[in-house]
Amino acid sequence: MIVVLKTEATKPQIDHAIERVQELGFEPRVITGAFRTIIALIGDDNSPGVEKLDAIPGVEHVHRILKPFKLASREFHKEDTIVPIGKVRIGGGHLAMIAGPCAVESFAGLDQIAGFVKKAGANILRGGAFKPRTSPYAFQGMGEDGLKILRDVGDKHDMPVVTEVMDTRQVALVAKWADMFQIGARNMQNFDLLKEVGQARKPVLLKRGMSATVKDLLMSAEYVLAEGNPWVVLCERGVRSFEDSTRNTLDLSAIPNVKGQSHLPIIADPSHATGRPDLIPSMAMAAVAAKADGVHIEVHDCPEKALSDGPQALLPDQYASLMADLRKLAELLGRTIDR
Amino acid sequence: MIVVLKTEATKPQIDHAIERVQELGFEPRVITGAFRTIIALIGDDNSPGVEKLDAIPGVEHVHRILKPFKLASREFHKEDTIVPIGKVRIGGGHLAMIAGPCAVESFAGLDQIAGFVKKAGANILRGGAFKPRTSPYAFQGMGEDGLKILRDVGDKHDMPVVTEVMDTRQVALVAKWADMFQIGARNMQNFDLLKEVGQARKPVLLKRGMSATVKDLLMSAEYVLAEGNPWVVLCERGVRSFEDSTRNTLDLSAIPNVKGQSHLPIIADPSHATGRPDLIPSMAMAAVAAKADGVHIEVHDCPEKALSDGPQALLPDQYASLMADLRKLAELLGRTIDR
Amino acid sequence: MIVVLKTEATKPQIDHAIERVQELGFEPRVITGAFRTIIALIGDDNSPGVEKLDAIPGVEHVHRILKPFKLASREFHKEDTIVPIGKVRIGGGHLAMIAGPCAVESFAGLDQIAGFVKKAGANILRGGAFKPRTSPYAFQGMGEDGLKILRDVGDKHDMPVVTEVMDTRQVALVAKWADMFQIGARNMQNFDLLKEVGQARKPVLLKRGMSATVKDLLMSAEYVLAEGNPWVVLCERGVRSFEDSTRNTLDLSAIPNVKGQSHLPIIADPSHATGRPDLIPSMAMAAVAAKADGVHIEVHDCPEKALSDGPQALLPDQYASLMADLRKLAELLGRTIDR
Amino acid sequence: MIVVLKTEATKPQIDHAIERVQELGFEPRVITGAFRTIIALIGDDNSPGVEKLDAIPGVEHVHRILKPFKLASREFHKEDTIVPIGKVRIGGGHLAMIAGPCAVESFAGLDQIAGFVKKAGANILRGGAFKPRTSPYAFQGMGEDGLKILRDVGDKHDMPVVTEVMDTRQVALVAKWADMFQIGARNMQNFDLLKEVGQARKPVLLKRGMSATVKDLLMSAEYVLAEGNPWVVLCERGVRSFEDSTRNTLDLSAIPNVKGQSHLPIIADPSHATGRPDLIPSMAMAAVAAKADGVHIEVHDCPEKALSDGPQALLPDQYASLMADLRKLAELLGRTIDR
Repeated sequence: MIVVLKTEATKPQIDHAIERVQELGFEPRVITGAFRTIIALIGDDNSPGVEKLDAIPGVEHVHRILKPFKLASREFHKEDTIVPIGKVRIGGGHLAMIAGPCAVESFAGLDQIAGFVKKAGANILRGGAFKPRTSPYAFQGMGEDGLKILRDVGDKHDMPVVTEVMDTRQVALVAKWADMFQIGARNMQNFDLLKEVGQARKPVLLKRGMSATVKDLLMSAEYVLAEGNPWVVLCERGVRSFEDSTRNTLDLSAIPNVKGQSHLPIIADPSHATGRPDLIPSMAMAAVAAKADGVHIEVHDCPEKALSDGPQALLPDQYASLMADLRKLAELLGRTIDR
Repeated sequence: MIVVLKTEATKPQIDHAIERVQELGFEPRVITGAFRTIIALIGDDNSPGVEKLDAIPGVEHVHRILKPFKLASREFHKEDTIVPIGKVRIGGGHLAMIAGPCAVESFAGLDQIAGFVKKAGANILRGGAFKPRTSPYAFQGMGEDGLKILRDVGDKHDMPVVTEVMDTRQVALVAKWADMFQIGARNMQNFDLLKEVGQARKPVLLKRGMSATVKDLLMSAEYVLAEGNPWVVLCERGVRSFEDSTRNTLDLSAIPNVKGQSHLPIIADPSHATGRPDLIPSMAMAAVAAKADGVHIEVHDCPEKALSDGPQALLPDQYASLMADLRKLAELLGRTIDR
Repeated sequence: MIVVLKTEATKPQIDHAIERVQELGFEPRVITGAFRTIIALIGDDNSPGVEKLDAIPGVEHVHRILKPFKLASREFHKEDTIVPIGKVRIGGGHLAMIAGPCAVESFAGLDQIAGFVKKAGANILRGGAFKPRTSPYAFQGMGEDGLKILRDVGDKHDMPVVTEVMDTRQVALVAKWADMFQIGARNMQNFDLLKEVGQARKPVLLKRGMSATVKDLLMSAEYVLAEGNPWVVLCERGVRSFEDSTRNTLDLSAIPNVKGQSHLPIIADPSHATGRPDLIPSMAMAAVAAKADGVHIEVHDCPEKALSDGPQALLPDQYASLMADLRKLAELLGRTIDR
Repeated sequence: MIVVLKTEATKPQIDHAIERVQELGFEPRVITGAFRTIIALIGDDNSPGVEKLDAIPGVEHVHRILKPFKLASREFHKEDTIVPIGKVRIGGGHLAMIAGPCAVESFAGLDQIAGFVKKAGANILRGGAFKPRTSPYAFQGMGEDGLKILRDVGDKHDMPVVTEVMDTRQVALVAKWADMFQIGARNMQNFDLLKEVGQARKPVLLKRGMSATVKDLLMSAEYVLAEGNPWVVLCERGVRSFEDSTRNTLDLSAIPNVKGQSHLPIIADPSHATGRPDLIPSMAMAAVAAKADGVHIEVHDCPEKALSDGPQALLPDQYASLMADLRKLAELLGRTIDR
């Protein structure tokens, strides 16, 4: 860590800063430059006192050198984490092909879609029972009834299931019925929820928040890991930008960026990122080419009657055609899609 | 609402779209333009079927005309809402001067700061007991002990108190000790939490999310209002942008923007928005000049020893000097600061 | 086009609006809704009077339906444009593999890099002679001497050459020595420069501005096309966002997004977008998988001695390895790389 | 400057890095930390070799300490620059009240508006003769005829005039007729244009680019200053963000932010920033409260007939009312408005 002092810092301020640094447990090395003084700190950048350094009088700014996450870091865990969800593995060359409707609407509806996507090559079924909706007047999901339907349909088609959990009070219930928790983008920094799923010991699909940096995403993963749950799968699903012709801006560079720093798997969700069925297939292909560990795609057999987010769903035929292309690409790249 | 069809939409597609629109309860008016067909819909833009329109084959996009919020809208509630918190009013010309440390650290520490800010002119005391921290290794707040201290110090100095609630399970506890809930930026779309404070019938300080539009903020307020709690105070605290010399970008245009559309009060938080004590006073003055109903400022008597966010706090002297300027500005603008 | 009136618009205001609309050459259809009045306009959304509609008293907003660009639009030009640059074609299934150093530094240096990239499979050589630099104290390029070197090296290796033009006064000079103009991101809306290259009748590589929407990019292309130059190749090179671990955020969804709306080719530049050699190969693969018509990559044999942007260049070996992967991917997708 | 080496950097890499640093003219101080090695560099952060450091093998990143601008910096020029434009001063407590229509349309039209704004208290007249328009089909300005009208009307009303210059070839012409150049947001990094106005020795109003950081803005000012022209006035006019209910997001924190780092005056342009007349007055008041050295406001007597950007103009009455409020605020804050 480097503490940079202001050009106009006085001798007593510099001395005080050195003293404070020592009190906080660091060994200071003072460097007197052409224009200003800096103090290099030997010690752990992640020690709790660090955040107070900025407020010492005469300090201009503090520059951290170590990454602020540990358990999520590849520095201390070189090999890829492979997350098991039922018999499907995610990471280390194994691709998750997660598909299903935005919301669970009925057994018959979900059953039909599951049949389609399973046949096309999906290996994990998704469907929301608790829906985070911008408007309080929009459909909020079927709740526990939806969870049961999801479980039954997953079992019928021999697919593990993933579904969103929105509130700490729902964690036990969701754990009862689903194989994997999804933490939505809006809850990426709902820290109590992260702690709760960290204690639940089921895999967690953690979506990047709409204004979260890659570092923020890894820090949120760190919350889950720090509670003892090692099964975190990250998901890039687009960030907010000024571009207004897509719902969000899919930041595919986050995929190799995460993979360089962390051993955790990361997939992409082009459905929520673009909100446009015409762009989803290209973005799914791009994600796998960028080394994503899978893709998350919404599929609905009648988007115009879907209770939630119909407009961004692929039709079963479109999904089957995309999966045919993805399989060829996976093969070219030496990746496996577990069934 | 306007449904715009694609240039290449076929006659059967247009007919199907008209049928669907009628099924969803709207009265369609078809307009055949020079290049394409549009359908104007007579009816309520906020009816539940609306979101399915985008997914009808042949539809290019749907353009809503009505605002998607109702209870928060000034269209149906012309006069300013005035939120009472103890004997302090917020809105309708009454300014909230909220001040205090980021986190409650001890009775003695908070007592001293409260004495300072009260004397300088603050009328509401703030202090966090549950702290949302990016890192799981950072100080997470004192919890219930912190709430009790906040209550005692508030009572001693005759100031109502506001504090953050992060999880639905904390709502009853926070309601027991505080006069006003704060919903932090990261939880602005934690919809279960919004519903819970909506049922609690204490004023709510709702902070804008870092990537929330003004419309999103008003939709989140709508969640609280829809549960029957009319006492929502909004807070602009900066959005994420590419500018990297400030923590966030304070969007002061949100203040007159909200006031034009909604009757709810809105204040500004220049401390979290800028993260820089050198910018806070100017931004607080600007906020009041922009017609904010108050400002929320962090104050600490020894920022370099604060357990959380010390670097962004004003010193007591700086706060007193700012308050002197704010009082003169408030007077010029005809605003009142309740004591 | 749809003119939406305010809820509180008076009868005289509505009548005045209808009159104005007629004066501006539109045929109005008035629709009286449940809550407000709208006027649908039959006529050309792109007629010059359109922008005045917003300012008519009583008007809340105006919603355009037609795209504001014409020559760039696929609506009136269905088949892909194929841009010829020497014997290399770009678009319609032909990929541009543009490579070279950021800046031309010397004949010997460029000659060596050109030899490497040509051998690896590049088909167009790039190198800057006029360099847009944030700082006036940074290396500004070799100017005309650089252009001559670029020409000579291109001829020696039988590769067409592309180089940036920054100022209207340089257009003739650049046209004399290069096969293709590059308009940099910072000049995407330098409209005089766009007009000037529009008159020059050489292909133009038009880079997306850092805060330009896809629509803005197409409007800038329209400036070139409107002067009579049909040879525009677009380039996605990242937009500015809050993410601070990459130089910019590469928006690959812009690629299928442009291709849906326009017949113009579009390539990607992962070097400038990410600024990080560790991310460039994955992003180049992703771009081609997303249907880009090529990639633009900076290559330098000694980045640590480059006079400009060394840190973002691939080494010749890294480039050769990437090209081997790109060739396999291109083959899988049925694309051709002209030599 | 601090060079941070990778954790896995080898001894030969570290030695090579030290050697390179010395070759580039720095004196290295090597610090071996708990986890990695860093090299502190004694010397000038702005020396030309600096940008190559990042590309040395084994280097993770380079952290600059000095600001990259010099002439614009307050570090070496403590007192506020006061820019004279005719008898009006800008900076050092003197406020510029710039007003006028977006574009010059006719002598009679401009004369009438100038009469209004002069009477209301404006001290500089603005009006565009060369207009940067997103669409090639929109009105592009009257050119030299517009410049002459602007000069004549300015003289008649005894107001200095400012107008935009878009291209290096227009600089001499604009210098002939106007008292101050305006560089628009889209040209903030048109470096040839900056150099040209830097040689012209007339004051320059430099608008912040839509995706420019405060540092970028100051670097562009540095281009003008480095050519010998000391009269630069900066202008905050909004940056691009995800918020879609305003044209741009006015970043008022840029005002005290610039003032802390630089001696140059800075004004705000709430007209272009918001694009909404209902928000302009509040934002103008906020800007002055934030210590801006003036405001730039578009005024038109018949916005619905304006040839450019009518919708964002204030009516003369609205402007007069705003000026009355601004004068009171200026008085409270001890500022002067030269006439």
